Amino acid sequence: MKLLLVNGNTTQAVTDRVVAEATRCASTGTAITGVTARFGVSIVSTEAEEDVARHAVLDALAANFTGYDAAILAISFDTALLGARQIVPIPVVGMTEASLLTACLLGRRFGLISFGQSSRWMYLDLVQRAGLAQRMVSFETVELANTASYLRQGGQDAAVIDASARLVQAGADTVVVAGAAMAGIAHRLRSQLPVPLLDGIACAVGQAETLVRLGLRQRAAVAPLTGGSTTTGIDPILSGLLSR
Amino acid sequence: MKLLLVNGNTTQAVTDRVVAEATRCASTGTAITGVTARFGVSIVSTEAEEDVARHAVLDALAANFTGYDAAILAISFDTALLGARQIVPIPVVGMTEASLLTACLLGRRFGLISFGQSSRWMYLDLVQRAGLAQRMVSFETVELANTASYLRQGGQDAAVIDASARLVQAGADTVVVAGAAMAGIAHRLRSQLPVPLLDGIACAVGQAETLVRLGLRQRAAVAPLTGGSTTTGIDPILSGLLSR
Amino acid sequence: MKLLLVNGNTTQAVTDRVVAEATRCASTGTAITGVTARFGVSIVSTEAEEDVARHAVLDALAANFTGYDAAILAISFDTALLGARQIVPIPVVGMTEASLLTACLLGRRFGLISFGQSSRWMYLDLVQRAGLAQRMVSFETVELANTASYLRQGGQDAAVIDASARLVQAGADTVVVAGAAMAGIAHRLRSQLPVPLLDGIACAVGQAETLVRLGLRQRAAVAPLTGGSTTTGIDPILSGLLSR
Amino acid sequence: MKLLLVNGNTTQAVTDRVVAEATRCASTGTAITGVTARFGVSIVSTEAEEDVARHAVLDALAANFTGYDAAILAISFDTALLGARQIVPIPVVGMTEASLLTACLLGRRFGLISFGQSSRWMYLDLVQRAGLAQRMVSFETVELANTASYLRQGGQDAAVIDASARLVQAGADTVVVAGAAMAGIAHRLRSQLPVPLLDGIACAVGQAETLVRLGLRQRAAVAPLTGGSTTTGIDPILSGLLSR
Amino acid sequence: MKLLLVNGNTTQAVTDRVVAEATRCASTGTAITGVTARFGVSIVSTEAEEDVARHAVLDALAANFTGYDAAILAISFDTALLGARQIVPIPVVGMTEASLLTACLLGRRFGLISFGQSSRWMYLDLVQRAGLAQRMVSFETVELANTASYLRQGGQDAAVIDASARLVQAGADTVVVAGAAMAGIAHRLRSQLPVPLLDGIACAVGQAETLVRLGLRQRAAVAPLTGGSTTTGIDPILSGLLSR
Amino acid sequence: MKLLLVNGNTTQAVTDRVVAEATRCASTGTAITGVTARFGVSIVSTEAEEDVARHAVLDALAANFTGYDAAILAISFDTALLGARQIVPIPVVGMTEASLLTACLLGRRFGLISFGQSSRWMYLDLVQRAGLAQRMVSFETVELANTASYLRQGGQDAAVIDASARLVQAGADTVVVAGAAMAGIAHRLRSQLPVPLLDGIACAVGQAETLVRLGLRQRAAVAPLTGGSTTTGIDPILSGLLSR
Repeated sequence: MKLLLVNGNTTQAVTDRVVAEATRCASTGTAITGVTARFGVSIVSTEAEEDVARHAVLDALAANFTGYDAAILAISFDTALLGARQIVPIPVVGMTEASLLTACLLGRRFGLISFGQSSRWMYLDLVQRAGLAQRMVSFETVELANTASYLRQGGQDAAVIDASARLVQAGADTVVVAGAAMAGIAHRLRSQLPVPLLDGIACAVGQAETLVRLGLRQRAAVAPLTGGSTTTGIDPILSGLLSR
Repeated sequence: MKLLLVNGNTTQAVTDRVVAEATRCASTGTAITGVTARFGVSIVSTEAEEDVARHAVLDALAANFTGYDAAILAISFDTALLGARQIVPIPVVGMTEASLLTACLLGRRFGLISFGQSSRWMYLDLVQRAGLAQRMVSFETVELANTASYLRQGGQDAAVIDASARLVQAGADTVVVAGAAMAGIAHRLRSQLPVPLLDGIACAVGQAETLVRLGLRQRAAVAPLTGGSTTTGIDPILSGLLSR
Repeated sequence: MKLLLVNGNTTQAVTDRVVAEATRCASTGTAITGVTARFGVSIVSTEAEEDVARHAVLDALAANFTGYDAAILAISFDTALLGARQIVPIPVVGMTEASLLTACLLGRRFGLISFGQSSRWMYLDLVQRAGLAQRMVSFETVELANTASYLRQGGQDAAVIDASARLVQAGADTVVVAGAAMAGIAHRLRSQLPVPLLDGIACAVGQAETLVRLGLRQRAAVAPLTGGSTTTGIDPILSGLLSR
Repeated sequence: MKLLLVNGNTTQAVTDRVVAEATRCASTGTAITGVTARFGVSIVSTEAEEDVARHAVLDALAANFTGYDAAILAISFDTALLGARQIVPIPVVGMTEASLLTACLLGRRFGLISFGQSSRWMYLDLVQRAGLAQRMVSFETVELANTASYLRQGGQDAAVIDASARLVQAGADTVVVAGAAMAGIAHRLRSQLPVPLLDGIACAVGQAETLVRLGLRQRAAVAPLTGGSTTTGIDPILSGLLSR
Repeated sequence: MKLLLVNGNTTQAVTDRVVAEATRCASTGTAITGVTARFGVSIVSTEAEEDVARHAVLDALAANFTGYDAAILAISFDTALLGARQIVPIPVVGMTEASLLTACLLGRRFGLISFGQSSRWMYLDLVQRAGLAQRMVSFETVELANTASYLRQGGQDAAVIDASARLVQAGADTVVVAGAAMAGIAHRLRSQLPVPLLDGIACAVGQAETLVRLGLRQRAAVAPLTGGSTTTGIDPILSGLLSR
Repeated sequence: MKLLLVNGNTTQAVTDRVVAEATRCASTGTAITGVTARFGVSIVSTEAEEDVARHAVLDALAANFTGYDAAILAISFDTALLGARQIVPIPVVGMTEASLLTACLLGRRFGLISFGQSSRWMYLDLVQRAGLAQRMVSFETVELANTASYLRQGGQDAAVIDASARLVQAGADTVVVAGAAMAGIAHRLRSQLPVPLLDGIACAVGQAETLVRLGLRQRAAVAPLTGGSTTTGIDPILSGLLSR
């Protein structure tokens, strides 16, 4: 099985990290490849930045999906998830949605941890859009000094353990850590917590493998208006997929 | 990996069917075992019947879970799901919740099909409890002449195809078929529908395998009141697990 | 009028207490009888324990309801309420639902007090299932050292007064105290609070009397599948009622 | 026990009818008195008309409540219910809220029947405000030719039976008929329906009796701003109660 | 353009203040007139007081609307808003709803500030009725010593700045200040806050002007029951409008 | 006052139409300018197409906003509304949100009309995100043969009148027509309907003028992570605004 990870941030180091974690937790026989957005923002953390990243995610997915069994959006806002499913025939899994749904299999109420104030409400919107607000018991946002501290592996471990304790106190049966750059933190810290700790990449790999094994693919997209979908100034491969 | 299927109905034929379908779709190396409730109702279809089945599910799970990596509740109301997770340390997956969560990975809105008026509202309650009502776009209930017609393999295929068409018309991106006795219908009919068709057993096996592969287990139960949990007149193994 | 109280815990002392309080507050001419579950858990405080109690409540109700005008579930989770209404033709009142609905007659927003962390979320589920979450303004859970302190009459009075003050501060127009063992606390402490204090047994007796006086009975249950409801290994009286 | 019925419509014939039905179903020893609004609209059926009736209900309640154990708002929008509870120390029961809460004691889902398009949405607002929308499974509005046909006793019986059948088909466990002028219809038609039929006056009498028997009264109102509540041009008794 | 401000409190000083603020912020060519309720309560702050004010608002609107292009309810509970739209053909704007809807044009989440405990829940009801609860991120109530301090211009400025800071901390993109007597506070304090500050009168004037410029009027009211709407003891002009 | 209309579709004819309607309904002294997306899709009607348009809207807004008092997103999905407000200091109004909020000023319940199945659910998501689902009473989608018929002025008039009649029957107090290409339809058809008909451009112009007149601007965006927002391969002006 071949899985494609699409990083909607332009930072190669994040792609490397998600690929490493995906490779670590994939089943034997699953091959992992990562691709980084060709344009956009180094680390997306506002709605405006994500608006650009949506285009970049579709651009990167369109250019690379051929030959893969499923794709994983390795950007923690699940950027362009619905659109991605409309342009490719393979399953597309959003890393954060995958982790939230996996959390639902382990208990009634999950808690969520994100990083930095500028994206706090984007995660609440994501949970709402995913229809899972009723199962989120509490939400913690870890303050960040700067991007560098966010990207340093292990740099948030202490803060995550603290935030998890507050979530457990609030009634969380599981704790989900958002953020592509956090890939691997659940594996690293799991033994230190009384409840399951989940991050997006491991769950997305597990869920993508499940969909492929079960032979499941999303429905083909409802066709846009006949004659409506001419494009201007975008990559020809993406253009071709939009005009299907 | 060893998975235990617990059928909360007392009908062995249903156990046989869910075991057959689970065996068909399990990964290489996954062994499937089924167990049937020792007491209760042949085919649960009312709240009163499910009240008895809750006890029977815990009784069967307690007596049989040792040595398994995960358990699947092979009764489509996910009977005693929260309680089951409190008495055993292995992951417990409800077949219907597993199918609904898997459907969420494949599209924004799922449709649901159940069988018989007496249980119609039990499924709505299940979806509500699962916190997934916002993602269910429509719900169809197939009328049943009697239990025999329900249990005959393939007996509901035409009705399911009809109901699926109505759900797709209503906007469903995926269709979930409830009912332990329906195990295998998704695999059988999938090619006849424009959207993915899911049933509970295949999804539950996939999700149970994912949890085991990722090394995830639900949190240990919050302890009951000290000195509170003496029991009377129930199976000693179950009693021992309740009194942990 | 004859009212039957069904205690789904196996503790006779709790039955005695609810019968005493019901007798105190019943109208002239109302006779109260209590019955205790024949099997199950001494004091139910987890979902797993309640799963067993559901069976036990139906078992006790089936064996004893004949000759009564209405039944009251004298276990504060309203255990098996929907199922109970399906097997007997007399009104069945859940003690906690009765207290919440009575609170709604006295003001816009009620507050709720429960005892012990292990059952905290069970009450939130109950309020949600009862469709009354919008009217609950706040919820307090009193910590318990052990079951003995919970069962000692008056042992929680100070904690209830404290919790009530917080609920009033949060905007509660009334305060509801959950817990079968708390029967009588509202009568005992009412004069010490600025808002009405309610407990389940008094309200359930009042509501059961109202239903009987008005000649109201729930609808007959929707029939289960023809031929579906054969039973195994359960009490024959209950079996007969399930197979109606 | 003495109960006061306050009719917020100015039609004496409606007062007579609600008093007759209340007298019929009250317990032995309960005395019923009715009072009609001194000003306002003959039959309230729009928001603007109810705005005037709110003043009229408080005016009539203020002038008449002394010596009563509880008051019932005998106008089916429960007009001025919250305000009424702020000005008098006795329990005040809204006839429609009482019927909806009583319906909740008899089943999971109620259906509602109202009369005339102009008030249809007022009932939906009432159910929403009462926090009971989740328990209403369906809502029927009977068209009316004119007010006379609405007021003629028995004139809506056939339409109510038809509408009830549709509500039962939609899943209603009970049916509630709104409208003060409909007082007695539930008693008259009950035997013709497979589910309990409720109207407001009978339920309000039952609930008012329950509150009085249990010794329950709403909390005293939160005081308005000191010095804020001088009044102009309204009845001095009402003025006195507002300025408490 | 001519706008009529209807103050449902009987305090002329409040009318003067809302007229002054409306005049300050109206477009060139817009003339502002204020009218004060002829009866009722000096400063409405409880549901009972508002019940009387509803009548008074309709009475004042009926007597004065002729010749105006739009009316503004200059009482911060938007008292009788739906009823007012039923009796006059010109647009009627509620000052608080106008400010909440304007806030929605400026950001995702608004915060709200009100004054005095007795009306706190009335504002929550207003937001709920307006269908805007999902967009309110937090709600602050400023305590008041007495009505005089509330009415003194600038008397609440410091408290509003404090409360706004807490709302911004909670995630508010805008802050809305309720209260007719607060008219002008947004203009006065705006430069001291990092987010837009809104009050009701300015927004209501802006919105009323927009509706008039766009030529928009609410639909004519659904007719009440034929023959139903005779009136007793109310102002003849209002009576005439109710009986349309 | 100068207003900028940003069309996120690449079709100049749509820009011309929205500019014409905006010019028709703007106040004296308001100047209207339109700008068309430099890249993307001719008529956006799927989530994937909108993902690209989000980038294009920000690109066009960034390149053109200088010197304007407010911007209007002249694409009916309010594409990139939150992001747009983060990159420019002037108010940004979404045409569909503006029409929904304006509808809320005219009545309790609005109905909505959109065009073509592929975008149907995008409008439901928009209403949900806008927090206004509670006020939408019904939603009609007009089928389209092709894009040409959609773009032909007046081509949908008959269908809109039909759909409006169904919405009024369902209880709509106002009807909102979505779609940038529909600009002007409300003005053209208003006299043929019993309730107000609204379209996005007229309402957005009115609301943008209101915000400018009242001197209101959205809060400055929360800063992204320090050092996080380097960009690659996007327009330098947009890049500069993202990196503020």
